Amino acid sequence: MSVLIVGSTALDSIKTPRAENARLLGGSASHAAVAASFFGPVKLVGIVGDDFPRRYLDLYRKHKIDLEGLQIAPGKTFHWSGEYEVNMNNRRTLATELGVFETFLPRLPESYRDSPFVLLANIAPSLQGHVLDQMRRPRFVMADTMDLWLNIALADLLKLLRRVDCFVLNESEARQLAQEDNLMRAAKKIHRLGPKHVIVKKGEHGAVLSSGGRLFLCPAFPLDRVADPTGAGDSFAGGMIGWLAAARGPAEAGLRRAMVYGSAVASFCCEGFGLTATARASRAAIEKRFKALQLLTRF
Amino acid sequence: MSVLIVGSTALDSIKTPRAENARLLGGSASHAAVAASFFGPVKLVGIVGDDFPRRYLDLYRKHKIDLEGLQIAPGKTFHWSGEYEVNMNNRRTLATELGVFETFLPRLPESYRDSPFVLLANIAPSLQGHVLDQMRRPRFVMADTMDLWLNIALADLLKLLRRVDCFVLNESEARQLAQEDNLMRAAKKIHRLGPKHVIVKKGEHGAVLSSGGRLFLCPAFPLDRVADPTGAGDSFAGGMIGWLAAARGPAEAGLRRAMVYGSAVASFCCEGFGLTATARASRAAIEKRFKALQLLTRF
Repeated sequence: MSVLIVGSTALDSIKTPRAENARLLGGSASHAAVAASFFGPVKLVGIVGDDFPRRYLDLYRKHKIDLEGLQIAPGKTFHWSGEYEVNMNNRRTLATELGVFETFLPRLPESYRDSPFVLLANIAPSLQGHVLDQMRRPRFVMADTMDLWLNIALADLLKLLRRVDCFVLNESEARQLAQEDNLMRAAKKIHRLGPKHVIVKKGEHGAVLSSGGRLFLCPAFPLDRVADPTGAGDSFAGGMIGWLAAARGPAEAGLRRAMVYGSAVASFCCEGFGLTATARASRAAIEKRFKALQLLTRF
Repeated sequence: MSVLIVGSTALDSIKTPRAENARLLGGSASHAAVAASFFGPVKLVGIVGDDFPRRYLDLYRKHKIDLEGLQIAPGKTFHWSGEYEVNMNNRRTLATELGVFETFLPRLPESYRDSPFVLLANIAPSLQGHVLDQMRRPRFVMADTMDLWLNIALADLLKLLRRVDCFVLNESEARQLAQEDNLMRAAKKIHRLGPKHVIVKKGEHGAVLSSGGRLFLCPAFPLDRVADPTGAGDSFAGGMIGWLAAARGPAEAGLRRAMVYGSAVASFCCEGFGLTATARASRAAIEKRFKALQLLTRF
């Protein structure tokens, strides 16, 4: 079944202690869409400027991503630049140039409105809601977010949370949203805001799913070299929704496996700058990491 | 089979954002010995002063811990006091009064020297080595450490590492010892210092075993309230060695399960101040958490 993904489509300039790369293909929707594409068809909703490199459109196309919902507007593509510290976990934003993103209003082509699986990747919660408004009856809606929206658009985010099945956020965001330091209690509080399934991402420590009163501890694939973790969380969510859409049966039953597939895709993401390593991955390589994760956690 | 445990036996005064408790039973050997006692007989090596409360000796005895190797010397028991920050992960030491520990030289009773399983819990590496010198032919030797010894007794620690089968240390210690930020590569470097099995503890994120070119990701039991994490790492190591000694077959084959049992015992430790919650646990309660950890990680 097809997956609709909305989020940011950007150019990222990323500096790590080892290397620096300018104007890579980035953005939450780019990472999530390529990650999801390994499992089945993806429809992308986003906006880029007329400076957007043709080779990046080709990369989307190579992954059979439907671009009917990608607006190409006069002006500059959203540009983010950031720098990672030595430990590769902390990063600081050096610059954010919104460009055409400033006036972005997602418009869903008619062919998109029946998509059963929806990933609202990180973007302003009002825009995530605007996408949902245009959908007919999605079967499973996942949303991601970032600390920025907790700080400047909390009311919009709370409104959105009542409409999503599965909410994905990272540790510090969970603590901030729930105003609760303990992650297990934070997850419980977040359920009360709407989502039936809450996933707390913990980077290299994996992720925790809280669902139906039960928890699942999802492992992260251990890497002995992290080139650039940008987009790992988006790849995780994208891999998840892609696998869920391809799997038979109700989404709930497959959530654990979907997370481990998401984790496998995210590990590729970290091995290269921007989308370089993800784009070079394959379904077979992902399957291999999924199996490795089974062996890594068996006792 | 019996387990020999050497380490510190102390009185801990602990402050958390919620509570404060003075002169609790603490020390690496106390935590490890009680943790190991759930699985079989334990022989303790340590030193306390003549101010050591009788009720703490009774607690050891209640857990059938052999105290022949516990010296009771004129003077004060080692006293540590520390304070935890709100997140319960960071702590700072307020005071360390060595007391009788200053001149401690472990002396093994004759009946201890044949113990097949040995845990060198956190204590100066020269003392850990001095215990090994007195052992006949231990089957499996585990050692723990702390950052202090990396800073002031690195040569002794390196000498010790050539004599241990399994070395347990936490994330930041692994990074410091290996001078390597990536944990997977840090573990590889630590193998070259001697230990066949390297376990990196990650607190609430579990632990990683590196052994025979393979990794195992050991989960931590998720807690919705942490009263006091002091001694959790010692309980983990103690639970591990206790289970290994009780299990049939070579220690290597059981390492993964041993770690999960250690993790289960450590979770009880965190639920109360000092040894309070651990001492109230039971083999059945530990078994229940082990099974819960299986369900929490299954996919």
